[in-house]
Amino acid sequence: MKSEFEHFQEQHLTHLNKYLEMYLSRLNGEQTLKDAMFYSVSAGGKRIRPMLILAICNETKRKIDEDVYAVAGSLELLHTYSLIHDDLPEMDNDDLRRGQLTNHKKFGQAIAVLAGDGLLTTAFECIGNTKLNDSIKAKLMTALAKAAGPQGMVSGQVADIEGEKKHLTLAELQLLHQRKTGALIAYACDAGSLLGGVSTEQQKEIHQFAMAFGLAFQIYDDILDVVSTEKQLGKAVHKDQFEHKNTYPELMGLDGAYHQLNEALFKAQCSLKSLGQLGMKTELLSGFLDYFARRKNK
Amino acid sequence: MKSEFEHFQEQHLTHLNKYLEMYLSRLNGEQTLKDAMFYSVSAGGKRIRPMLILAICNETKRKIDEDVYAVAGSLELLHTYSLIHDDLPEMDNDDLRRGQLTNHKKFGQAIAVLAGDGLLTTAFECIGNTKLNDSIKAKLMTALAKAAGPQGMVSGQVADIEGEKKHLTLAELQLLHQRKTGALIAYACDAGSLLGGVSTEQQKEIHQFAMAFGLAFQIYDDILDVVSTEKQLGKAVHKDQFEHKNTYPELMGLDGAYHQLNEALFKAQCSLKSLGQLGMKTELLSGFLDYFARRKNK
Repeated sequence: MKSEFEHFQEQHLTHLNKYLEMYLSRLNGEQTLKDAMFYSVSAGGKRIRPMLILAICNETKRKIDEDVYAVAGSLELLHTYSLIHDDLPEMDNDDLRRGQLTNHKKFGQAIAVLAGDGLLTTAFECIGNTKLNDSIKAKLMTALAKAAGPQGMVSGQVADIEGEKKHLTLAELQLLHQRKTGALIAYACDAGSLLGGVSTEQQKEIHQFAMAFGLAFQIYDDILDVVSTEKQLGKAVHKDQFEHKNTYPELMGLDGAYHQLNEALFKAQCSLKSLGQLGMKTELLSGFLDYFARRKNK
Repeated sequence: MKSEFEHFQEQHLTHLNKYLEMYLSRLNGEQTLKDAMFYSVSAGGKRIRPMLILAICNETKRKIDEDVYAVAGSLELLHTYSLIHDDLPEMDNDDLRRGQLTNHKKFGQAIAVLAGDGLLTTAFECIGNTKLNDSIKAKLMTALAKAAGPQGMVSGQVADIEGEKKHLTLAELQLLHQRKTGALIAYACDAGSLLGGVSTEQQKEIHQFAMAFGLAFQIYDDILDVVSTEKQLGKAVHKDQFEHKNTYPELMGLDGAYHQLNEALFKAQCSLKSLGQLGMKTELLSGFLDYFARRKNK
């Protein structure tokens, strides 16, 4: 029998994908650019980040209307930009992503850089075009820029590249991941809190959940690179190992990595318990944690 | 004797550069990234785009405070990102910019992509961090994203690349330039109008001025590539010609290009005259037009 989370995901994934397709098709720009942007956005994936926003809105009884889809969708646009640039020859140099050719393999390197630039920029436009009040718009755009920019994700990327030359300590690796993956996941949850209009106590606890979930997410990503096949992940595997990247399994072995994963999951569960005590429904957020038991691809 | 415009420029250029240095130094991120971002931002240039914002604020008696510098500075951050990505090997493949090595030549291609991404993203953060009211913040960020993204500058870039394979008509070339260069210049003037709180009539006329100025700016850029030396421009010259890029001189000869330039300048002057009739001071904006007579480098 399907869980509440699976029902929710099924229902909203279709709507979200339609929203993204419509948003991109309506942009008044060069067709080649739009094709390249849509190619990567439509490559699928679980849409974890936007789903977190939608789930928190649902749990807080915020009506999931077009504006909420726009905020959720804008995060997927921005996340997709990061994947396109990450795959570039000068970065990770990947040929496959989600089982299809990476953007630069399909459209060439110049268009891939610009498709990434376009997605990043239009993520802000997408929020700006909503009918949300200006205060919420300004807060969302500022928080998104902080999470994705040089104080967040972009610094995580740089730390990742710089880290290839040296062994990081656990604290350094945690900071790297907090910026590279954690910042956008925390933004997703903060955005959900903002749209849902939760109390300050709830907002803090949702943020704690996000931090723990984001960490678990990245550790699991590192583990999957070691234990999966290319077919399961839809992209090259064992690359981290081969390139001696700084990962949890590399730093503390596979058992150590699983231990860290379980610790992060425990923290996330504690936050959910606290949220329950604060009067918030948490079935859907709890559903996100099942992901670590059954995930087959990104 | 120095003109009012030259006095103004001298006074505010120093402040603006200090603001940019302070803003970047305070970011809590990886040092390598911050160095790469600052390297290109501090390479100089006339700062035409932020200066337009400052000039309109000055003419409308808007106090030029820290918030105005932030809005002006954020546009320079974003403009600098576009130059860094534009210079990449997969794009224009330039080694020199403003007389110094391009970002990727200095820091490597991966860091250059990320420095560009960081500058683009933090431009929005920079506006979001001001004390301006939320309505103005939201309007500025939305307009900036529209001007810089797939409905503006990024589409211009793609059209430029696609255009290398074919001859464009004058109308197509104008659309290309309107997006590639014009959109950000129009944004600068619109932002100035918003900060200055001008009337609707004045706002429309300032926008008209921006469109004409932006067009003149791009035509002059095309002309300079033909008539200048590398030393004068601080970057490689005659590349457009060599690569049969779609430019005004390529499409209609040098005389034809000068004719189009003068036509655009005439339109800009007409707008300034109308603005004067609408009760606005225009000495500073007029000073921007002198630029076309004495400009030596970007």
